Amino acid sequence: MILHGYWRSGTSYRTRIALNLKGLAYETAPLDLRTEAQGAEAYLRLNPQGLVPALETGDGLVLTQSPAILEWLEETHPEPALLPPDAAGRAQVRAMAAVVGCDIHPLNNLRVLKAVRALGADQAGLDAWAARWIVDGFKALEALVVRHGDGWCFGDRPTLADCYLIPQLYSARRFHVDLAGFPRLLEIEARAELHPDFLAAHPDRQPDAD
Amino acid sequence: MILHGYWRSGTSYRTRIALNLKGLAYETAPLDLRTEAQGAEAYLRLNPQGLVPALETGDGLVLTQSPAILEWLEETHPEPALLPPDAAGRAQVRAMAAVVGCDIHPLNNLRVLKAVRALGADQAGLDAWAARWIVDGFKALEALVVRHGDGWCFGDRPTLADCYLIPQLYSARRFHVDLAGFPRLLEIEARAELHPDFLAAHPDRQPDAD
Repeated sequence: MILHGYWRSGTSYRTRIALNLKGLAYETAPLDLRTEAQGAEAYLRLNPQGLVPALETGDGLVLTQSPAILEWLEETHPEPALLPPDAAGRAQVRAMAAVVGCDIHPLNNLRVLKAVRALGADQAGLDAWAARWIVDGFKALEALVVRHGDGWCFGDRPTLADCYLIPQLYSARRFHVDLAGFPRLLEIEARAELHPDFLAAHPDRQPDAD
Repeated sequence: MILHGYWRSGTSYRTRIALNLKGLAYETAPLDLRTEAQGAEAYLRLNPQGLVPALETGDGLVLTQSPAILEWLEETHPEPALLPPDAAGRAQVRAMAAVVGCDIHPLNNLRVLKAVRALGADQAGLDAWAARWIVDGFKALEALVVRHGDGWCFGDRPTLADCYLIPQLYSARRFHVDLAGFPRLLEIEARAELHPDFLAAHPDRQPDAD
């Protein structure tokens, strides 16, 4: 498989974690979002939306949108499971993932930050914008982890929720967000820092890292 | 089941469509987002994140986050299916849903528009902000529907992708977005206007509509 992504993109990072947790080998095809490499014609032929990530599965299929890619990985490579076996648990894990995937990350990615800057925000304004959505979402996640977590977001093994959370924590640090109010999330982050699949997915370990 | 939502919220609207397509009866518990009713203590006990929708399933379970609710509906009430049977098709439908759910809607909801206004945008600026993300996402969706649709977003029956698309088209009209460039999406909208399950889910038909 070939993963088209960007080292520091949260959606690429979460996809790498899931691929690693599933034990799947993949090649990295980097696109530098800062120079808008994702707008190049060759990539647009692969993914007309011009966003990362895209996963070429090797049988002619090109998957886009990380939530869809992660569900596809779970369906086609069920072991180890990244969703619980029961519908209620699965809904809970997906809800946690959506807090990051729908309520935090979409507001803080590069194309949106550029638009916020165009409205007149300076760097402090950008940090405040990002922090607002991160803190709101992390408050919800912290409460959910207190209720459902046991070392990881849900139970005692990594799930899709952790694939979403860890890159969002990395991003929160880039925006200088005070994370002291989220001890359970930090505990998960500390655990991920010792986990080879999360470690190998870290932006700094990617071939296109600065 | 009890659906806590708001007549004009896109995430509530998409959940109503899915419930109707599945033939599931539910009560409506309205929350007026304009007066921040979703921040009231009784609702926060149900959904600590204070966002809509939330679905009480009747057996003590409270589901939040519409992407998680829709997947739960599909798992627990598989007929009629809102996802194709094969993993590749499912990934395609989920990718279309994510274009709306991750790349468009999160940027245009009420809490975000308030934040954009606080950066100094006037009504024209808000419309331009919303239109930017809607047009970008609809371009991607139009191309995907050309490739995969046959009356609906994917194939000849409604899927989760249509549950996401129709509310986003409704929202696009509120922001005065020019939709002439999206003939295939408009064709789906016209078909939904004749479909009783989509009609019954329309904001104007909800008990809390203005």
